Amino acid sequence: MRELDENSITAAVIERFSNAPNPRVKEVCTSLVKHLHDFVRDVRPTEEEWGYAIDFLTRTGKICDDVRQEFVLLSDTLGVSTLVDSINHPVHGDVTQSTVLGPFWTAKMPDCKMGDDIHGNMKGEPAYIYGTLRSEDGTPLANAQMDVWHSDDDGFYDVQQMEKLGGPGGRGRFHTDKDGRFWFWSIKPTCYPVPTDGPVGEMLRGQGRHPMRPAHLHFIFSAPGHRRLVTHIFDPTDKYIDSDAVFGVKESLIREYKQHPPGTAPDGKAMKEPFVTITYDFVMAKEDKKAA
Amino acid sequence: MRELDENSITAAVIERFSNAPNPRVKEVCTSLVKHLHDFVRDVRPTEEEWGYAIDFLTRTGKICDDVRQEFVLLSDTLGVSTLVDSINHPVHGDVTQSTVLGPFWTAKMPDCKMGDDIHGNMKGEPAYIYGTLRSEDGTPLANAQMDVWHSDDDGFYDVQQMEKLGGPGGRGRFHTDKDGRFWFWSIKPTCYPVPTDGPVGEMLRGQGRHPMRPAHLHFIFSAPGHRRLVTHIFDPTDKYIDSDAVFGVKESLIREYKQHPPGTAPDGKAMKEPFVTITYDFVMAKEDKKAA
Ligand SMILES: [Fe+2]
Ligand SMILES: [Fe+2]
Repeated sequence: MRELDENSITAAVIERFSNAPNPRVKEVCTSLVKHLHDFVRDVRPTEEEWGYAIDFLTRTGKICDDVRQEFVLLSDTLGVSTLVDSINHPVHGDVTQSTVLGPFWTAKMPDCKMGDDIHGNMKGEPAYIYGTLRSEDGTPLANAQMDVWHSDDDGFYDVQQMEKLGGPGGRGRFHTDKDGRFWFWSIKPTCYPVPTDGPVGEMLRGQGRHPMRPAHLHFIFSAPGHRRLVTHIFDPTDKYIDSDAVFGVKESLIREYKQHPPGTAPDGKAMKEPFVTITYDFVMAKEDKKAA
Repeated sequence: MRELDENSITAAVIERFSNAPNPRVKEVCTSLVKHLHDFVRDVRPTEEEWGYAIDFLTRTGKICDDVRQEFVLLSDTLGVSTLVDSINHPVHGDVTQSTVLGPFWTAKMPDCKMGDDIHGNMKGEPAYIYGTLRSEDGTPLANAQMDVWHSDDDGFYDVQQMEKLGGPGGRGRFHTDKDGRFWFWSIKPTCYPVPTDGPVGEMLRGQGRHPMRPAHLHFIFSAPGHRRLVTHIFDPTDKYIDSDAVFGVKESLIREYKQHPPGTAPDGKAMKEPFVTITYDFVMAKEDKKAA
């Protein structure tokens, strides 16, 4: 065991985990070392390259703060977040598919009531957003918590431009009505780039990739007895719909906006300018339905 | 391509690298995504587990500073540093084997001359350390730069206890004499733990491992026309010689200390207390000998 070479090192490291108190830790670390060493043997990094990797990871940690999580963004842009999501939320009956959370959800959400217009000082085309929420068994889910957030015509979320907006915009926490319905006003979101001024941006440029996400609305639904549903609704007309920088698009989550001339909106509101409407019926999985 | 599942996601991510300007970046990123996704599919992390991984990496970056590099320590303790070293410095003739740099080398080293005692205010058994340096072709290497550093009886390097020591100790930069020889005094190092107050310590405890490194002397030799030699000399009597926390031990780098009663040392110095001596003849590779 003293004379470790590029092949024997792997078993020697794994042997050290033999007394790990938790079998799951042992299993995960064993697999990590196997795959990590295989990667290193495969690419045979120079010492300079390995030094770059160390520095890249260090800078990725350093740039994280309360409103920025660069390691989540790294996981997103390498497809790992979508992979973990697929593993934990396999396609199941007509349950709405989940997708990545993304970095712009905030724990503190403005409390809203149905019918509110949440666009604040954001710029964009008025959009009336409505739909229903039910359980996989068909029961409408009343009083379920619904978080919504999205970007504006400039491609920014409110948290990226708080000074300019003077407060939240395109963000709110609602509760579904007694029949599991929801409806509110905001603006139609547009595509936007993930933050590119950190290590992930450096990586995307090195990989020759664009940083854009196709336009989408974020939703999180929470209801007793059901698995939390984290998802998006995507705009099929967006030019990035087939090249989402974080691999979040799913066919079943694509829904067209309807264009309307000035006139009466579905909720009776008189609109002097054109507007769009979009609707989606969400379905939540019961809590005991775990990943296969 | 829109409907990515836990298998199709991998090809979809790799496809994004097709326009990478640098073929090496493309090669490394492709391999990384394959191995990283295989790891995730293998362990099938829950969302909580993946969240822990993100947080672990973030904390590993955050704790790094000018004198602490936790990602290097993570690479060391997972055997990756030794693996990268093996790939870049395969066994070659009688060239001295290299090993990990470790986190305690400093760019600024006290300038020393042969015969100096470098132990400063460190506590330990007096040690006379001497040897030679030559090229793989047999030529003695005169005036080569030699950095030396090691820990003390308490298991600490000087940089970990500067206030207590009041200055450097167990650390110096020498130049070999006209015949490629070196000799100096210090103290015999003891085993020590890698830092355990950060994420790597948390990992080692989770893996049921000790954090100890067997006693060693660090050396870096630099000479024109030769590859830099980064290595250790290990003490075979150390209880951790077969379980180095960073997998740095090599049979050829083990050398016994000789015990001496009070009396005349090899350099003529009159010693009133017992002391030890250790000698090693180092061999450097010519610069054009690259990894196979
Ligand atoms: Fe988003
Ligand atoms: Fe050391």
